[in-house]
Amino acid sequence: MATPLRILPLGGCGEIGKNMTAIEYGKNIIIVDAGIMFPENDMLGIDFIIPDWQTLRERKEQIRALIVTHGHEDHTGAVPYLLKELDVPVYTTRLTRGLLEVKLKQHKILDKVDLNTITAGDEINIGPFKLEFFRVAHSIPDCVGLGISTPAGLVVHTGDFKFDHTPVDGQTTDFAKLAEFGGRGVLALLSDSTNADRPGTTPSERVIDDAFDRVFRAAKGRIIVATFASLISRIQQVANAAMRYNRRLAIAGTSMLENTRMARKLGYLNFPDDLLIKLDEANRLPPRNIVIMATGTQGEPSSVLARVSKGQHNQIRINRGDTVIMSSHPIPGNEEMVHRTINRLYQRGAEVLYDPIDTVHVSGHASQEEQKLMLNLVKPQYFMPVHGELRHLHAHARLAREVGVESQNIFVVENGYPIEFNDGEARIGERVPGGYVYIDGSGVGDIGPTVLRERDQLGRDGFVMTIIHRDADTGELLNTPELITRGFVYQKEAEELLIEATNALLQTIDSNQQAGANTLEDKIKKVLGDYFYKETKRRPMILATIREL
Amino acid sequence: MATPLRILPLGGCGEIGKNMTAIEYGKNIIIVDAGIMFPENDMLGIDFIIPDWQTLRERKEQIRALIVTHGHEDHTGAVPYLLKELDVPVYTTRLTRGLLEVKLKQHKILDKVDLNTITAGDEINIGPFKLEFFRVAHSIPDCVGLGISTPAGLVVHTGDFKFDHTPVDGQTTDFAKLAEFGGRGVLALLSDSTNADRPGTTPSERVIDDAFDRVFRAAKGRIIVATFASLISRIQQVANAAMRYNRRLAIAGTSMLENTRMARKLGYLNFPDDLLIKLDEANRLPPRNIVIMATGTQGEPSSVLARVSKGQHNQIRINRGDTVIMSSHPIPGNEEMVHRTINRLYQRGAEVLYDPIDTVHVSGHASQEEQKLMLNLVKPQYFMPVHGELRHLHAHARLAREVGVESQNIFVVENGYPIEFNDGEARIGERVPGGYVYIDGSGVGDIGPTVLRERDQLGRDGFVMTIIHRDADTGELLNTPELITRGFVYQKEAEELLIEATNALLQTIDSNQQAGANTLEDKIKKVLGDYFYKETKRRPMILATIREL
Repeated sequence: MATPLRILPLGGCGEIGKNMTAIEYGKNIIIVDAGIMFPENDMLGIDFIIPDWQTLRERKEQIRALIVTHGHEDHTGAVPYLLKELDVPVYTTRLTRGLLEVKLKQHKILDKVDLNTITAGDEINIGPFKLEFFRVAHSIPDCVGLGISTPAGLVVHTGDFKFDHTPVDGQTTDFAKLAEFGGRGVLALLSDSTNADRPGTTPSERVIDDAFDRVFRAAKGRIIVATFASLISRIQQVANAAMRYNRRLAIAGTSMLENTRMARKLGYLNFPDDLLIKLDEANRLPPRNIVIMATGTQGEPSSVLARVSKGQHNQIRINRGDTVIMSSHPIPGNEEMVHRTINRLYQRGAEVLYDPIDTVHVSGHASQEEQKLMLNLVKPQYFMPVHGELRHLHAHARLAREVGVESQNIFVVENGYPIEFNDGEARIGERVPGGYVYIDGSGVGDIGPTVLRERDQLGRDGFVMTIIHRDADTGELLNTPELITRGFVYQKEAEELLIEATNALLQTIDSNQQAGANTLEDKIKKVLGDYFYKETKRRPMILATIREL
Repeated sequence: MATPLRILPLGGCGEIGKNMTAIEYGKNIIIVDAGIMFPENDMLGIDFIIPDWQTLRERKEQIRALIVTHGHEDHTGAVPYLLKELDVPVYTTRLTRGLLEVKLKQHKILDKVDLNTITAGDEINIGPFKLEFFRVAHSIPDCVGLGISTPAGLVVHTGDFKFDHTPVDGQTTDFAKLAEFGGRGVLALLSDSTNADRPGTTPSERVIDDAFDRVFRAAKGRIIVATFASLISRIQQVANAAMRYNRRLAIAGTSMLENTRMARKLGYLNFPDDLLIKLDEANRLPPRNIVIMATGTQGEPSSVLARVSKGQHNQIRINRGDTVIMSSHPIPGNEEMVHRTINRLYQRGAEVLYDPIDTVHVSGHASQEEQKLMLNLVKPQYFMPVHGELRHLHAHARLAREVGVESQNIFVVENGYPIEFNDGEARIGERVPGGYVYIDGSGVGDIGPTVLRERDQLGRDGFVMTIIHRDADTGELLNTPELITRGFVYQKEAEELLIEATNALLQTIDSNQQAGANTLEDKIKKVLGDYFYKETKRRPMILATIREL
């Protein structure tokens, strides 16, 4: 039997997954990307989620490289956590490296990390793998996909891509290389599924220039453009518009400012020094000569834009006549917070422009016609949709069937299911253990389902607590137990309810003098739980602490 | 000075508002609609929100009528709560009345309520008002808008509408009546803003028939169509497709079943008796002869579809080959739950169709071109966008300016701000007191910001509780205080953290023996709060109960 090739999505598929894939041949593993995911609305208190690389930890000496395809959070956010655990050389492009360096410095591990710069067009050999990096267009410059030649065959991983013919940096997706792969014969294609439910073709980033032009020409007051801190090409577009319409540019938000500095230094942003001014300078210029860029397009409560929308930013205050451009789309799950931010900006007197009101943002991901073109260029024997929710992977699989990939050669798998290629045959392997790892404050992976269930109950209906002292021998009550509640009812107005509940409690204690503390506790929980449900249709957490003296 | 006319949105605008308007002239008030709103994601544990009609309560003898324009929850959901408080005659169309009766029966107040049936085309006089009801197309049959002649002028309220030329029930919006209003001269137009950020024209409900046809023709297994319980016309469309493709129809979900019975009895649903079968019968027929309709398109955890997607429904189990049609759009804020339901259905082997994968749902609300047509037909002197978030009202205002309504005659107001018309002049009046009223379980309005803040903190980071007994005279500690946590850390794995925290606690008690109980409590909260934040970057609620013995 030949050595099998395994492709294992660890944060790459599944219900909410994104972007970490391990590719293994013999005792050699390379990892492509290590991104974060945003928590779902019922994962209370969780900041974000990183993939579970438990299965890699066990074989850490086999890991040869981490490849990072581009600089977005959903591909880089977990890199510091990964590198704190695993000592792996990183290969990535210049701009992505610059963005990673900013991040690794924040995590205080920059000097311990082995970073290597590659360029689209490069070929490098790592163990049994030959990696060929090729240019893809996305919504940030310097993105690559990769061809991975293995003894079992050629695997093509698109990274995040679109077929933008007029990208901001002029670097189109490398059609020729994709076609060349197709000619050579591709064992498996892993392709970006994010927009697999969108018909047609994603518009070029270039259409945003026209929208900015319209807005900059018409706006009489200040313009505030909100976007992601890593959306380098958008910063260039805003700078271009600012120069055309005689506005100076101020940037609010540390990470965007740091990214801008870095990208200018590396030559990924081109504009004269005097375009950029500080926020306090901006406040001294006439409104029609200012454009401010800020983070916070996802409505994150602590972001610049959210604070501006609530009147809580100490340097930016919305005035009537200001125009705010939301140059991003809400990440699924963030819609409500984004819309609330927009509503609040309106409340303060701003005009707010967002897609679909005007084309001030386009997706960075391929739509169906582009995905089909990718499939037809690469002509893979096997197809594995990646990046996106399960519904997107299935939609992408449907497209692959339409363009002629055989049904049995299409693998839609969730996180942790490897695809194994052996002697030209492919099958789904056994699931590796693992799940999501929650980041909450400074805790990495210490929050699990128990704590989340408690938070869910506490968040929904609060709690009721009582402390009971009883005689260890006779079981007689020694105190007057009170009921303390938080998050359940407004205690001042619920006196009657709580008096009735206390009576039920006293009765329970009275009729259970002989019962052990645990039994009494259970009875109290049941009696109070039932009583409160009957009266309020709510189910607060009940805590009874019994002390025997 | 003439008597002023006041138009007061109470649940009709604002950040998340919907659909309750009071129209007042002298000592006469009529109310149009009384709908519920869905809570935002950070209103933990709240089931839904009803408008605050405090200002009406004070003048309840002046309220002449409640008009209900159509049978959707966001226009009818608060009606039972309103009628429990205020004894007001209700005027509405036959189908809407049928739907209201189902609802009022559930609330056990049907026999106490004065319901009056009106028909599109009717004119009725109520106090100083002449009401003229006119047909509007929407996504449920028997919708009306209304012209309200007052001594101060004619007010037109569109209700929810679209200009569907081929609606399922054949009843188009009454263009002629709108034009006639326009000819007569309209003081003010209140128009549906829901889709004011959507360019173009909303597709006709009819396009869904084509989509259903495609799906029913191709599906080899069972078809499950999920939609709102009140979407009567969608039930008709599914029934039509079922008859065309030789499938029997089963309905899962009490409210949809009750609505179907009622709508058939009233003649709003037309299909033969033997089309409809019970769920257990459906399970005995070949899959290709079944279509099941179910509720749960918003991902509500207790709904039929959510339970099916989790394998928790006792009569419907997903088999490979089943096709699920999501015939609805997510209500803003529900996107994530909806997408999770879709992903879970895929996990169980279903094919899932939803817009934009296929046109299995269209909006019931007018898009920009239709909104402009409405404005141009009615030609109002004053314009007041209603129904929608603030951003939609502003987008609608922009359209009104485009078609020539004078800027100063357009009033974008939030809940509680009346527009007052006096001697042909209009101005924004003083805000009436009130806000949102939360419904949580059986509680109406008993949950306020304090409890929500507690839930927010508990849900985000849980709590830590300690009970301290000390000597009332010496302040000496009498017990070994423990730390009890829920929702904060996984207690079993956080031993060290809690031991350190207990040490800090003991030290605090020790060095504060002379302090009063309240002072000690505050110190403990600060010490533990700071300690836990330093160690975990989380901020659990800290509770310290001090007993002096």
